[in-house]
Amino acid sequence: MSGGTAAIPASRFAERMDAAREATRDRGAAALLIGVGPQLRWLTGYAAMPLERLTLLVLPVDGPPTLVVPRLERAPALASPAGQAGLAGIAAWDETDDPIGHVAAALPAGAAPGRFLLSDQLWATFTLRLQARLSEATFGLATEAIAELRAVKDADEIELLRQAGTAADRVVEAIAAGRLVGRSEAEVAHEVRDRLINEGHDEAAFAIVASGPNSASPHHEPSDRRIAAGDAIVLDIGGVRQGYCSDTTRTLWVTGESDTVDLDFLARYAVLQRAQAAASAAVRPGVACEAIDAAARAIITKAGYGERFIHRTGHGIGLEVHEDPYIVAGNVQPLRVGHAFSIEPGIYVEGRDGARIEDIVVCGEDGADAMNRSSRDLYVVRGR
Amino acid sequence: MSGGTAAIPASRFAERMDAAREATRDRGAAALLIGVGPQLRWLTGYAAMPLERLTLLVLPVDGPPTLVVPRLERAPALASPAGQAGLAGIAAWDETDDPIGHVAAALPAGAAPGRFLLSDQLWATFTLRLQARLSEATFGLATEAIAELRAVKDADEIELLRQAGTAADRVVEAIAAGRLVGRSEAEVAHEVRDRLINEGHDEAAFAIVASGPNSASPHHEPSDRRIAAGDAIVLDIGGVRQGYCSDTTRTLWVTGESDTVDLDFLARYAVLQRAQAAASAAVRPGVACEAIDAAARAIITKAGYGERFIHRTGHGIGLEVHEDPYIVAGNVQPLRVGHAFSIEPGIYVEGRDGARIEDIVVCGEDGADAMNRSSRDLYVVRGR
Repeated sequence: MSGGTAAIPASRFAERMDAAREATRDRGAAALLIGVGPQLRWLTGYAAMPLERLTLLVLPVDGPPTLVVPRLERAPALASPAGQAGLAGIAAWDETDDPIGHVAAALPAGAAPGRFLLSDQLWATFTLRLQARLSEATFGLATEAIAELRAVKDADEIELLRQAGTAADRVVEAIAAGRLVGRSEAEVAHEVRDRLINEGHDEAAFAIVASGPNSASPHHEPSDRRIAAGDAIVLDIGGVRQGYCSDTTRTLWVTGESDTVDLDFLARYAVLQRAQAAASAAVRPGVACEAIDAAARAIITKAGYGERFIHRTGHGIGLEVHEDPYIVAGNVQPLRVGHAFSIEPGIYVEGRDGARIEDIVVCGEDGADAMNRSSRDLYVVRGR
Repeated sequence: MSGGTAAIPASRFAERMDAAREATRDRGAAALLIGVGPQLRWLTGYAAMPLERLTLLVLPVDGPPTLVVPRLERAPALASPAGQAGLAGIAAWDETDDPIGHVAAALPAGAAPGRFLLSDQLWATFTLRLQARLSEATFGLATEAIAELRAVKDADEIELLRQAGTAADRVVEAIAAGRLVGRSEAEVAHEVRDRLINEGHDEAAFAIVASGPNSASPHHEPSDRRIAAGDAIVLDIGGVRQGYCSDTTRTLWVTGESDTVDLDFLARYAVLQRAQAAASAAVRPGVACEAIDAAARAIITKAGYGERFIHRTGHGIGLEVHEDPYIVAGNVQPLRVGHAFSIEPGIYVEGRDGARIEDIVVCGEDGADAMNRSSRDLYVVRGR
C-alpha cells in the first residue's frame, strides 16, 4: 500500500488518460494494458495491492476504458479517483472466472490482431496469459507511450516531492544529531524508519545505514555491525509520502572522543562534493541526461577516482523511487522543465570506506530546484 | 526488503536448487530464469530489492547456475545464503552493459532454441527483452516446476510460520483489548503495524481495519471513519517475520456502553464459525483443495448466505502471503502433508456489516495444525 495521492485533483487523471491514449495511438498501438503498479496509479490514482488476482486497466485508443478487477477489489476500485469520477467502467470477475476473458471482452472489436503496450511491471504470469489469448498480437511496453508524460511533473507533483524531501531532510538531521557510537546499523535503520513515518511518510521504503567498510557497498543492507569512532556512515533513506517518493543521501564521519577525521577520506569527500555541485549546476532544459552524469564523473575521474564511482549519477523519481529519466551515460534524452531526478555521485574504496551525496532536483527554466535542503557538507559528528 | 530467512540452513538452498533443476528437466525446459521475488528467495535465500536493474538467476538443467546482478548489488548477492555457500556464480553487469547479454552468456551452448521457465512475477520489461533476445525459444512459468516443491513446507518453515502466527495473534488480542470507540480505522491500523513490528515482524504488510458498513468490503482500505458503538470490525492483519508470512482475521463487535449485539449479526457469525471449523476439520492428506472450500461453503449456503460469501476459502502461504495451494472451487489438487494455507470464510451484507474468521493451518498426517490460536469466537468488546 503506497497510500493515496490526495493532493492530485480527479480531473488530472482524465487529462492523463487522454494524453496516454493519444501517445499510444501515435505509437501505432491499439491499447494500453496496465496492471497494478505505478503506471496504474499515475493513470487512475488507484493504489491497488499487488495480487495473484488480475487487476488490469484496458485503455483502448478507440473505445471506453475498462478496469478489470477481482470481485472483492470492486469497492476499493470504485473508491479510487478514477472510479469515483467514472473515468473507467469497472468489470468485476468472480473467483472462478477467467480474468483474461474479461480483458478480451473489454477490447473494441477488431483490436485483437494489433499491438498492445503492457505495463512495465506486469507479472510474467499475466504477460504469458495475455500473449496466449491475443496470439496474433504483438506487444510492447507502456513506457513507450507514457514514460515521458509521467517524467514531466506538474506543480502539484513538485509540491508533493518537496514535502517528501523536506520530511526526509529532517530525519537525516535528527540521525546526525543523535547517538551513533555503539549502536548497530540495524538499530539506526529502525530509527530512520520510525522517524520517516512520524514525518508523515506512509511507507519507509529503505534505510541504508552503511558504516565503516560497509559504506563502500552502495546498496548495503543494514547489519548487526556496531558503529564506532572512526567510521564513515552513508545514510541513504527514503519512502513514500502521499504517493510521492523521497530519496536522499548524506555522509557522516563519527569522531567519538577523538575529534579527528581521516585526511584521505576528507580529500575524497571534497572531490565528491564538487562533483555533486557541478552536476546540479549543469541542469538546464535541453541538456542531455548523460551530460549531467558526465559533469559529475569528469571531476571524480580527474581526481583519480573514476574507477571508484561505480554507478550512474541518478534516476528519475515520482510515484516510483526509480523511474525515467535516468542520469546515465548513453541517455541522450534532453532534460525538460519538470523532470525530477536524483543527483547522487559516490566514491567507494572497497574494504575501507565510501561516501555519497544525493539530492532530488527538479529541472526548472533556470536550472535545478533542489527538493533537499539539508547541508551537503560532511556531517562530522561525535556520535554520542 | 522482506528480511532474511536466517533459520533456514544454507544446505537447504542447495537441495532446493537441485530439486528445481530436476523438476525443470521433467517439464522439458532448458532453464529456469528467476528474477527478484519469492521464487528467488526460495531458491537462493537472496532477498533482493525489486529494481529496474535486472537481477536474474539462470538455472540451467545442464550446467552451472549463474546469478546475473547489477554491479552495485554484487556485495548483497555475495552475502546471500546462496552467495556465501557458492551455490551460483555471480555475473555482475555494469551500468552501461546490456544485462540480457549476460543472461544469454550464462546459458549452456545449444540451450537457446529450447523452453524457458520465467519467474511468475518477472516484470514485462524483462520478459519482453528476454523474448526478443531468445527469439526462437518458448516460455512458460517457473511455477510449473517449483510451485509444488515450495508448497510443501519443511519443519523449519512450519516453525517460522508458527512464530509469525503467534506474533500476529498477540496483536489481535491487544487490539481487541484496547480502546476502539472514537478512533479512526486508520489510527487503529497504525497501531496494528506498530505492534506487528514490535512483535518481531520485519514488515507489517497489511492491516485491514474495516468497521461498521466498511466491514462488508473484504479488502477495505482503512479510512478516517471513526469507530462507534454498534460496529462490527473485521481485523485482517499480517506481515513478514524472518521471511515467512503471518495472516489472520478475527471479527469484533463494539458494544460501547450498550452491551448489546445485533442478533442477526450473531446468527450469521454462528454460521460462519461453524463453516470455518468444518473446513478446518476437513483438512487431511489426499483431500482436494476444492473440497475444503466446499466444506465451508456448504454450511454458509445451507444457512442462506451463499451469495454473501464472495471469495474463495483460502490461499497458500509461506514466503508469499498468497501462493499455492489455493483453496478454491476448481482446484482438484490433493492436499499433502506440509501444505500451509489459510481457511478464511466470510459473510458480507453490503451497506451493513461483514464478518470473517481466518486461520493459517498446516496439513498434517492427522489433520489441520493451526498456526493461529487466538479465540475464534466473536470478540464482543466495549471498546473504551
